[in-house]
Amino acid sequence: MEEVTAIVIEQKELISAIDTVWVSICAAIIFLMEGGFALLEAGFVRSKNAMSIIAKVIIDITFGGLAFYAVGFGIAYGTSNGWFAFDMGIIESDLGLGLTVSNKLFWFIQLGFAIAAISIVSGAVAERMKVWPYAIYVIIFCAIMYPLAANWVWNPNGWLAIRGFNDFAGSAAVHAMGGFAALAAAIVLGARLGKYDQDGKPVAIPGHNLPLAAVGGFILWFGWFAFNPGSTLGAVGNWELIGDIATNTFLASAAGGISTIIYTYFKYGQIDITMTINGVLAGLVAITAGCNVFEPGSAIIIGLIAGVLVDVAVIFIDKIRIDDPVGAIAVHGVNGLFGTIAVGLFASEDGLFFGGGTDLLITQTIGVLVIGTFSFVVTYIVMKIMKKTIGIRVNRSEENAGIDAVSFGVEAYTTFE
Amino acid sequence: MEEVTAIVIEQKELISAIDTVWVSICAAIIFLMEGGFALLEAGFVRSKNAMSIIAKVIIDITFGGLAFYAVGFGIAYGTSNGWFAFDMGIIESDLGLGLTVSNKLFWFIQLGFAIAAISIVSGAVAERMKVWPYAIYVIIFCAIMYPLAANWVWNPNGWLAIRGFNDFAGSAAVHAMGGFAALAAAIVLGARLGKYDQDGKPVAIPGHNLPLAAVGGFILWFGWFAFNPGSTLGAVGNWELIGDIATNTFLASAAGGISTIIYTYFKYGQIDITMTINGVLAGLVAITAGCNVFEPGSAIIIGLIAGVLVDVAVIFIDKIRIDDPVGAIAVHGVNGLFGTIAVGLFASEDGLFFGGGTDLLITQTIGVLVIGTFSFVVTYIVMKIMKKTIGIRVNRSEENAGIDAVSFGVEAYTTFE
Amino acid sequence: MEEVTAIVIEQKELISAIDTVWVSICAAIIFLMEGGFALLEAGFVRSKNAMSIIAKVIIDITFGGLAFYAVGFGIAYGTSNGWFAFDMGIIESDLGLGLTVSNKLFWFIQLGFAIAAISIVSGAVAERMKVWPYAIYVIIFCAIMYPLAANWVWNPNGWLAIRGFNDFAGSAAVHAMGGFAALAAAIVLGARLGKYDQDGKPVAIPGHNLPLAAVGGFILWFGWFAFNPGSTLGAVGNWELIGDIATNTFLASAAGGISTIIYTYFKYGQIDITMTINGVLAGLVAITAGCNVFEPGSAIIIGLIAGVLVDVAVIFIDKIRIDDPVGAIAVHGVNGLFGTIAVGLFASEDGLFFGGGTDLLITQTIGVLVIGTFSFVVTYIVMKIMKKTIGIRVNRSEENAGIDAVSFGVEAYTTFE
Repeated sequence: MEEVTAIVIEQKELISAIDTVWVSICAAIIFLMEGGFALLEAGFVRSKNAMSIIAKVIIDITFGGLAFYAVGFGIAYGTSNGWFAFDMGIIESDLGLGLTVSNKLFWFIQLGFAIAAISIVSGAVAERMKVWPYAIYVIIFCAIMYPLAANWVWNPNGWLAIRGFNDFAGSAAVHAMGGFAALAAAIVLGARLGKYDQDGKPVAIPGHNLPLAAVGGFILWFGWFAFNPGSTLGAVGNWELIGDIATNTFLASAAGGISTIIYTYFKYGQIDITMTINGVLAGLVAITAGCNVFEPGSAIIIGLIAGVLVDVAVIFIDKIRIDDPVGAIAVHGVNGLFGTIAVGLFASEDGLFFGGGTDLLITQTIGVLVIGTFSFVVTYIVMKIMKKTIGIRVNRSEENAGIDAVSFGVEAYTTFE
Repeated sequence: MEEVTAIVIEQKELISAIDTVWVSICAAIIFLMEGGFALLEAGFVRSKNAMSIIAKVIIDITFGGLAFYAVGFGIAYGTSNGWFAFDMGIIESDLGLGLTVSNKLFWFIQLGFAIAAISIVSGAVAERMKVWPYAIYVIIFCAIMYPLAANWVWNPNGWLAIRGFNDFAGSAAVHAMGGFAALAAAIVLGARLGKYDQDGKPVAIPGHNLPLAAVGGFILWFGWFAFNPGSTLGAVGNWELIGDIATNTFLASAAGGISTIIYTYFKYGQIDITMTINGVLAGLVAITAGCNVFEPGSAIIIGLIAGVLVDVAVIFIDKIRIDDPVGAIAVHGVNGLFGTIAVGLFASEDGLFFGGGTDLLITQTIGVLVIGTFSFVVTYIVMKIMKKTIGIRVNRSEENAGIDAVSFGVEAYTTFE
Repeated sequence: MEEVTAIVIEQKELISAIDTVWVSICAAIIFLMEGGFALLEAGFVRSKNAMSIIAKVIIDITFGGLAFYAVGFGIAYGTSNGWFAFDMGIIESDLGLGLTVSNKLFWFIQLGFAIAAISIVSGAVAERMKVWPYAIYVIIFCAIMYPLAANWVWNPNGWLAIRGFNDFAGSAAVHAMGGFAALAAAIVLGARLGKYDQDGKPVAIPGHNLPLAAVGGFILWFGWFAFNPGSTLGAVGNWELIGDIATNTFLASAAGGISTIIYTYFKYGQIDITMTINGVLAGLVAITAGCNVFEPGSAIIIGLIAGVLVDVAVIFIDKIRIDDPVGAIAVHGVNGLFGTIAVGLFASEDGLFFGGGTDLLITQTIGVLVIGTFSFVVTYIVMKIMKKTIGIRVNRSEENAGIDAVSFGVEAYTTFE
């Protein structure tokens, strides 16, 4: 029977190997989403600020990544009192998560979520925020703010986790978190010069390179098929779930694109292709919280709603004079909120529409409102303090000249000779 | 002995986990190929139509994807009478394919093949087709046309499957299917304004952004290493085969690139880099049917032939006044045809050149001719009907102004300030 | 007990399946890095040479790939006498490497390393080298030169392998190999016209499309999470190691980016974003040799050093009048050298700083110096011979007009209409 014992031991090893392949490759693809954010945002702004927004995403990755390694991870996944932890060496300890992959690999995939959240903000502050204050904010966000939300939602002792909050891959913890921070940052920064005319009406500032934005959009779309299914953190025991998640993720994204296409066509007489990219992303954001508990039909309905919601939200945000150059608030904030609440409505067992009563709906609503409010308030305060002290906005002449030339000494494109 | 029983059960679970990791990640990468199609085609057209072609690919994914979910999958993989099935709820049933992954994950990877096929057409209709008729055609293609071909080839009861037709990853079912639809669509649409001069001679309309096309080309090349090996639908039991397929896929693509480089250099005195990208893709298309049954040497020969074939075909198609802006017919149609027939010649056991006689060659030839003819005829009829009724082509002034501005209200690039 | 035997047999099969999924997907992602090289380099040169550099990378893949298949692999992995092998049919034999994946899959992942090495050279010869002499050099490099280095380092009988040389994913065998070849090639070619003014001072020739370069940079960054962890050649038994490698790889890249941001800010008063991309890549190159044996803290320190080293090296190389349009020598040569030696200092068991004495340090230093010198000398000789015979540089008028128009008959961008 020694042979059998040997097999049992090896099976543990096999399980860890399988799950490591799964998580490692999903984590790498999630990491690539940073390229998606950078290129989407760069394409959606004017060429004079294209490289500075790519620089901001590189700051998200580098400063944010090291901050999440040194501090954030211990706050998120240490032994939590329900609200936070503070276990810096935790990467070497048992996290109590029943992981079959190494703590470091778990850290690496979590990193992707942390820097995705902050990269949402980089879009909303485009074309006017100074680089060093942005770097300071990135460090605060990745070291403290995002890890607190992750602690509440995904730490086994987190107050939302205990209440059964279902935010599978982060409509709340990643997208609402980033989206409401983006809202606060855009408010404190104020609109770009020339964004509103003398009557206060919004002036369209079209993106300079929409094919580049499309490169970014396709990378993000691709990445979501790692972001959502990869949140299983292992394939063994989850093989059916992974298929469900991939299908739901696709269906919501397709429905989001379709509803934006139809909505903009009937509203404006022309399909708005820029908005369609955002419609797809809105569907993806909205499905992220409950991709593990939705029926395919629900995924389609959620996507259809998200695709309209993002259009309405972009126009509304523009109208109330909050300048969000890439639509980050509408895509990630509004649809992160919607998607999290939608779990309480559409979850196939506990959702209101499936006879599950209002318990989950209430938990979902409270959870995402607390996360969104927390992110908004802290960002507002941090930005206000920096505004009063070191300043957060480039000066008028710099803004006119473009941040690329002034802060980075480059042009995205030199004469094509 | 209970312990041993437990192990046996777990092994089933492990196998499903391994195969799920494999299929899930391959499916995600195959999905990314849509980005490849979009960017390749956008780079190869004029900037005034760049975003509209990206929009068409988004329509392929969204409208086509939902059509394939709601209808197509049941036609392709339901219980077939040899020619078609009509089992709409089939995604919840046993498909009789001996799958180790979930039906939904199987659906998700099949989706990638369906939308790849239709995206071939989007290139051939570039710069002149109206968007809504295109969307209608996409729905017909993904709900009915492509699923029929998939039924014949990959449904265990399909008439070609029963005859031993070897179209491993779809030279016929995907590429010839898309390529011959592209041919019919291009014929019915007619050439772009200015494509032929007063003497009927073709006028070159160069792509506006070849580096962007190269981004697309590299994504497609990458994606093929999921498209072909991923068609194993599982890694357990296929580990040697996966290595064979990856190697054959690479060798044919490299040989395709090399033969185009050498051919265009000797023919024109200059290497044609645009055509070289198509040469690589031609090698990839040609190897797709038999990547599982070729020796490496055969893969190289097939690639070398494909790389010349695509050059000759592009020139010929241009000459007979069929306007295919991105070379989709030559790449996918001609080389899909060639690659499928090549299995009958080069298959290492049953191919004519390896002593296998003509049986397989005849099956392969019949199969791809039927698929190509079917796709051509149905597309021709659908396009003709739409042409007579709702119209399929933008009007003269719209075409001159560009579809981006007229139908989508955007410019791909605004003044680079 | 038959049942148990069956299980034991299947476990071998499961292990091969798991490792095949791992290696196959990593190999595909490593292959995509060629797109990264092509786009990074294209963005960093002038638009008149953008397509020709993409063509050079396609030549790396196609000519280089077939050369590595037909000849190089047998030299690298045949039965070695310590310095070389010459076993052409080796792909069908037992390689003695204890592989759990097929020889062909092993070949396919090795291909990625071979063509990565040569693609480093393509950047340094940009904007002035003739295409056919380049193709000849590519064949020599991939058939003979790179395989010799691989033989020394990774063949179990290689003279460096026997001495315990630790070059896990190729700081020496890939990056120093490519970087020192790039140095020799740049020297023999001479500087681009106009690169130095009448006083011999370097004139900046900015890249024409930095967002395109960023696309390439993000692809490379992504690819490194397959390049380094994938060098395990299997996940079974390596699941902890894979997490360590991914984390080290990330930390070094982030630290490289940060140190370049800080260094260029303090030195020039502006963050150099082009250099920051190179700083990230420098961190990645430097961590590649010892990503399997470093503590995270060491990875950060190595990244910080690499990020400064690349800045200093770029300026120095420019100053001594060696014209390297994309910084390939500084990124890959200098940091490949540094990273390989750093293993001797920072390896957590045998490194000098960790009480391991000087043995490993000496081996690492000798190894990388021999590889760098070998690559430099052979490249210098080959380039000199070609220069004297067939010529390696385009003529003056061709260089002014751009290689795209003259050798390839295209423009990267046509009028954006």
